[in-house]
Amino acid sequence: MTSKRLDDSSAFEFETAATRVVFGRGSAAANVEKEAARLGAQSIMLIAASAESDLAHRLTEQVRDRIVEVFGSVKPHVPHSAAVAAQECAVRSQADLLISIGGGSTTGTAKIIARETGIPILAVPTTYAGSEMTPVWGMTTDGIKETGKDLRVQPRVVIYDPALLVSLPRDLAVASALNATAHALEGLWVPASSPVSDALAVDSVAQLTLGLRKLCTGHSQSEDQLLLGAYLAGVTFAATGSGLHHKICHALGGAFDLPHAATHAVILPHVLQFNSGSIASKMTRLEAALGTGEVIRELRTVWRSAGAPETLAELGMTAEQLDEAIDLVARKLPIDNPRPVSAADVGNILRSAYEGGDA
Amino acid sequence: MTSKRLDDSSAFEFETAATRVVFGRGSAAANVEKEAARLGAQSIMLIAASAESDLAHRLTEQVRDRIVEVFGSVKPHVPHSAAVAAQECAVRSQADLLISIGGGSTTGTAKIIARETGIPILAVPTTYAGSEMTPVWGMTTDGIKETGKDLRVQPRVVIYDPALLVSLPRDLAVASALNATAHALEGLWVPASSPVSDALAVDSVAQLTLGLRKLCTGHSQSEDQLLLGAYLAGVTFAATGSGLHHKICHALGGAFDLPHAATHAVILPHVLQFNSGSIASKMTRLEAALGTGEVIRELRTVWRSAGAPETLAELGMTAEQLDEAIDLVARKLPIDNPRPVSAADVGNILRSAYEGGDA
Repeated sequence: MTSKRLDDSSAFEFETAATRVVFGRGSAAANVEKEAARLGAQSIMLIAASAESDLAHRLTEQVRDRIVEVFGSVKPHVPHSAAVAAQECAVRSQADLLISIGGGSTTGTAKIIARETGIPILAVPTTYAGSEMTPVWGMTTDGIKETGKDLRVQPRVVIYDPALLVSLPRDLAVASALNATAHALEGLWVPASSPVSDALAVDSVAQLTLGLRKLCTGHSQSEDQLLLGAYLAGVTFAATGSGLHHKICHALGGAFDLPHAATHAVILPHVLQFNSGSIASKMTRLEAALGTGEVIRELRTVWRSAGAPETLAELGMTAEQLDEAIDLVARKLPIDNPRPVSAADVGNILRSAYEGGDA
Repeated sequence: MTSKRLDDSSAFEFETAATRVVFGRGSAAANVEKEAARLGAQSIMLIAASAESDLAHRLTEQVRDRIVEVFGSVKPHVPHSAAVAAQECAVRSQADLLISIGGGSTTGTAKIIARETGIPILAVPTTYAGSEMTPVWGMTTDGIKETGKDLRVQPRVVIYDPALLVSLPRDLAVASALNATAHALEGLWVPASSPVSDALAVDSVAQLTLGLRKLCTGHSQSEDQLLLGAYLAGVTFAATGSGLHHKICHALGGAFDLPHAATHAVILPHVLQFNSGSIASKMTRLEAALGTGEVIRELRTVWRSAGAPETLAELGMTAEQLDEAIDLVARKLPIDNPRPVSAADVGNILRSAYEGGDA
């Protein structure tokens, strides 16, 4: 989906791609067979990292006779060479369906093939990345990541199965869920937010927070909430794109090699605090959805119990680097945000994030 | 969108058609030009009831040179003869885009053409019908209404403009908004409900209720909330379909010729009360969205102030007809509903609706 808020405050656009989502615990293999048949697939190219080949094998057992190609050279950030190899493979095998089983890099590899060939994708996500719900593709050439939007890369069918997430190591689950939460929360204040994306974003944050709470208390089936929240976060992100929060995180991540998810956990409360007065009615909805009048405090509590850090200092950043970081982000101004952002504001946000304390 | 809840309580399906919504007050004419161009339309067939020809003329002024046909014989429930005439007209004129401007019957006429010809529809709704967001078509032959689902009939682009609703007579606005509310509320308990349709349904009820409150207090711009709520109700209905409430209303409407919207207002509180214990978490979300712990009381208060009746007796039904009505609905059992429905339950629901009092 894509959406765009127009000049008039109540005007918006909202666009949905033709997408089918099938969600069910323990039913991925059966759904792969059913959905491949529904798409009339005769020649399937399977994309799965070698580390997940056993899983991929198991989930595609019932369509084995139609698999004409298996591609396992999945690399993070889709390097150009891997993209070319995957595209050639798809063309050579005359595949009419791409089945991707894995996390964001696997889905990303399938998308790069679809971008070149138009072959439809059936995606089975095994993390909370959410990229399976977006038309965004990415490819890295000589260390530079290029991204773009193309409706052809958006998976035609997405099969969600919480049982596949049970074996995801806890630290990866938390990182992936925090990444999804950042997409959903940012969706509330970027210019492209709309009443429809707001409804999905609020629900996404609520599901992800509930899922993280369950995960931290060792509750089984936390995956149901987390995966549902990730799905909604993906839809939200596709509709709204990124804003102030991601601009800060990308600047910090690029310059100081900070861990992505931990940076989200540290920065988000401060950006949310900065914007909260400008999105008052949405904050009220978040309060209702989370069942607390103290949204920021609640999010920080849950994230801390999930093992996320609370300050940039904890992430190993020095006081000198803090000044450098403020300068880096300030150079990206102006940033489109409901509350105008000055260089001084950037300094305040990052200093609070560095020292911790109340957001 | 279509969705389906599967056997496992957390399993669901959710499907979106490729649809683009553009929402903005006072911008319909500009958006018609922009969106027709985006679709590459060269030969436009305009569908608008003769009563709305002035409006249609005004909104299509900027695409006048590409209009090859104007069809004005719009009739309620799309009679077969009108359908055939409209289809022939579209084929003869070699139209590549249908622009429908009007209420449910106008959209319905465009859908019948699209079903036969596959020509895409750009819809500009002038009521709160919501049918512009669904793949449902309907046609009446010899007094019998046939309906069906076909993705080809779902409008490719929908242009919402609250300013077009300002001139809608108040009684029609209320009727149309109640109809939309019934779709959204029923979406919460039918088997096909899903977490995504729930988020949209709750938001829809909240927007429609806020809009009706504004309408009743003479507040300008009530149309913004009502139209947004109608849009979300249409999406919800497309995903979830109808259930116990609509089965009761259709039985009553068919047998006793009761007014559609008034029947919704009378029956809904009692079906909602009957189901509320089975959808407790959704009721909590409704309470949060409406800002009250007394959802049913609040809805009844708003509807009463909008002039809706509260009892079947007020609608002119007699005690003898009540027994007949209970029998009619009971004959439709079993009805798929979260709380099983017995013949005695039907009696209780309809007797409460007849006598009024607490739902």
